[in-house]
Amino acid sequence: LRKDQQQRQEQVLKALGESVRSFRTEKKMTQEELAVAANLHRTYITDIESGLRNVSFLTLHRICLALQCSLSTLIVESENPEHCPN
Amino acid sequence: LRKDQQQRQEQVLKALGESVRSFRTEKKMTQEELAVAANLHRTYITDIESGLRNVSFLTLHRICLALQCSLSTLIVESENPEHCPN
Repeated sequence: LRKDQQQRQEQVLKALGESVRSFRTEKKMTQEELAVAANLHRTYITDIESGLRNVSFLTLHRICLALQCSLSTLIVESENPEHCPN
Repeated sequence: LRKDQQQRQEQVLKALGESVRSFRTEKKMTQEELAVAANLHRTYITDIESGLRNVSFLTLHRICLALQCSLSTLIVESENPEHCPN
């Protein structure tokens, strides 16, 4: 993988993680509460929110069910230029 | 996993796959062309379009780059009730 591609991927995961964190805090849920609701481990939520996990589509879907938001809303938020400068 | 949850997951992957297929055919690309552009195997594209793969976020992102569409557009399409009845 070229360095710019790798940086781009890191950015994309970071933006996704920030979007998850933003929806979670909006719902006034802790990482622990989201983890329980989505049947995931708390540290996994921490890693996702930090952009350290390349999460699968179904896991993302479960997180959205737990956050009571649609996946498209979450993704739109992550594509917001505030998160993702280029 | 309960049976209704499993069915729901299958539906979600199927809707995503149909969305990928719909964008690909709109771009007049073959599965082979999309595979090359996204640096994936053709049979992997076939599986995704058939809803047989729980694709990762970064792979989805690569597919969208290859299709020159945003991930949110693809997801919105997959959430279209035509694909996803409930």
